[in-house]
Amino acid sequence: MQNFVFHNPTKVLFGRQTLAAIGSETRLLGKRALLVYGQESLRASGTLAQIKGHLHQAGVSCAEFGGIQANPLLSKVRQGILKVRAEEIEVIIGAGGGSVIDTAKAIAAGSMVAHDVWKFFTGKKSVRATLPLLAVSTLPGSGSEMNHGMVLTHDQSREKFGFGHRLLHPQTAILDPELTFSLPAEQTAYGAVDAICHILEFYLSTQDPDTPVQDRLMEGLINNGMEACERCLADPCDYEARASLMWTACLALNGLTAAGLGRIEMVMHLLEHSLSGLYDTPHGAGLAALLPGWLHHFARSRPERLAQLGAGLFPRSGTGDDRERRLNHCIEAFLGWLEAIQVPTSLEALQIPSQDHPRIAAHTSGLAKVWRMRQYSPAFFEDILQGCR
Amino acid sequence: MQNFVFHNPTKVLFGRQTLAAIGSETRLLGKRALLVYGQESLRASGTLAQIKGHLHQAGVSCAEFGGIQANPLLSKVRQGILKVRAEEIEVIIGAGGGSVIDTAKAIAAGSMVAHDVWKFFTGKKSVRATLPLLAVSTLPGSGSEMNHGMVLTHDQSREKFGFGHRLLHPQTAILDPELTFSLPAEQTAYGAVDAICHILEFYLSTQDPDTPVQDRLMEGLINNGMEACERCLADPCDYEARASLMWTACLALNGLTAAGLGRIEMVMHLLEHSLSGLYDTPHGAGLAALLPGWLHHFARSRPERLAQLGAGLFPRSGTGDDRERRLNHCIEAFLGWLEAIQVPTSLEALQIPSQDHPRIAAHTSGLAKVWRMRQYSPAFFEDILQGCR
Repeated sequence: MQNFVFHNPTKVLFGRQTLAAIGSETRLLGKRALLVYGQESLRASGTLAQIKGHLHQAGVSCAEFGGIQANPLLSKVRQGILKVRAEEIEVIIGAGGGSVIDTAKAIAAGSMVAHDVWKFFTGKKSVRATLPLLAVSTLPGSGSEMNHGMVLTHDQSREKFGFGHRLLHPQTAILDPELTFSLPAEQTAYGAVDAICHILEFYLSTQDPDTPVQDRLMEGLINNGMEACERCLADPCDYEARASLMWTACLALNGLTAAGLGRIEMVMHLLEHSLSGLYDTPHGAGLAALLPGWLHHFARSRPERLAQLGAGLFPRSGTGDDRERRLNHCIEAFLGWLEAIQVPTSLEALQIPSQDHPRIAAHTSGLAKVWRMRQYSPAFFEDILQGCR
Repeated sequence: MQNFVFHNPTKVLFGRQTLAAIGSETRLLGKRALLVYGQESLRASGTLAQIKGHLHQAGVSCAEFGGIQANPLLSKVRQGILKVRAEEIEVIIGAGGGSVIDTAKAIAAGSMVAHDVWKFFTGKKSVRATLPLLAVSTLPGSGSEMNHGMVLTHDQSREKFGFGHRLLHPQTAILDPELTFSLPAEQTAYGAVDAICHILEFYLSTQDPDTPVQDRLMEGLINNGMEACERCLADPCDYEARASLMWTACLALNGLTAAGLGRIEMVMHLLEHSLSGLYDTPHGAGLAALLPGWLHHFARSRPERLAQLGAGLFPRSGTGDDRERRLNHCIEAFLGWLEAIQVPTSLEALQIPSQDHPRIAAHTSGLAKVWRMRQYSPAFFEDILQGCR
């Protein structure tokens, strides 16, 4: 186990009717709130009206800032920062999925500095303070509601970067599984894939050979994510399944799974960020489409880890002497699960032709260089992409 | 899954040489520290001198408050509170096992009130503020280093009560596995049993039938605890094993395992608190001695949970149609493990004769009543004790 610091101060309110606490919880953080949200679903489901009602009752004024898209954009964050200054906002609320909560984080941090907010994402500036932040999760997947990360896309360069800082933990996160009953099947599945890929990234990349606490935690969470996703797709209003998926996705990337594993470079996510930056692919769909290439890559580069994962997830692949066969069984079983939940499992399914591979690979290698991960050449990524046709 | 609030703001510094950070971390919390510790082992191992050196270097003055025993006493906490007031202490450091850290917590909370500190433990008063607290764990088991609980024994009445409040989380916890290399085998094993029993208590008592996230987490942690304990006993200086046990014990009772399980009454611990209150038994030894009775009790009252646990811990007991046989196999396998790590597995082994059972049962039922758990009669506890002869 490698040395680590674990510090996650977010207060999580989990369960039925917890949204009702948003008024009093926000009031603890400030009296003038900016409410960041996405497209029309929050309004259509009635959640937006509920939130505004609870805030009003608690004496919190609320400026709306909607229209955040998947793969959120820098330009939108800059607008949000201007709005915070114009309306003397004291607290930011992000109510939605990872894109919304990440936008809320970027506004909360960007409002406190004179420089452009993009400098956080290219590593040129660090965070020193943020406005207080409350997150309401309506789409389990990113884990942003209880972590210190945020991801943003530059409108022109199409660079999509993640950035983490301890001050980006929301003060409070409200996780009410009933708010996810209305999620379309597609988004439910993409969210589950995202959460599972966070864990896969850690599990398959760690170089530490002796991390049984983390390994069992991660195997358990992947199993939960798969099982809960299937149950949610079978019955979108299965409260227990929605709760299981929501808590699993939250724990998958709240710092616990990675604690003790050493430095993890999140290379799978880096490549997907190219896809969603360049093609505006939904993040979970991009990850699913890339998984065939990644799993084959790990079968070559980290066969012992993939074999261990297979034994944990698909017990039937865990026995027998022929490791090659066990690895193939694990990959097939995993891809079979992706097909069962009806997510794309190839770049072709995303209408990304193979002649684009060099461009994607070069773009990803460029992203890697900005964060000083110089060992990842375009050829490295082209090789992965080859496996995803 | 039941509704829950999860909020654990403790910052954990985990790993080799992390003790060196105690100076700067304490300095963030205050300039005048009370250093609470136990018997002579902290001095003998050189850790005490190291701590004092680091504090001095960081400009923190340090008043020593040693001599805390296992099953810590109210009288000692009262002395500590007087010392805090006399020396105008600003921050409390607890360096040791659960008894030391719990004493430090009680001093940190008791120093802020005019009433007697025992009123917290009998539920007559709640905590409103504490002095800041830093914990250095040298004995994995209690989990006190990263949780909001504390346990104390009344010198005269021999009542031993646990009490929890969110303000009792240490601000900072330093977990350096190398500090546990010198732990005697007995204490290593007692600590592991304590950590595992925290999880067993949750796992076997929850009334919620659908908690897969928590179940997998708990099964993984129990497995880790058992495995790591065996490795530590085989080689006390096995860093990875010490690290695994330390992080397992911390996660076992930091709020995560219980989140979503609903109300858990900790009845196993209540009965053990009678033993250690009345006979000054080491807590882990008392738990081990009581486990035969508890496991048979749960085989009758919660057979489905015990069978599920058996399948998770001892795969060979998890198959076959005959549930009775599987339950017996699980109990035997677990008791066999306790014997292998050489902890007492009967009250006789602790020199507690069966004619004392009525007295212990009556005492425990009295403890239960103080916290309004009136359904637990002396007869209920006598029945458990019968199974532990």
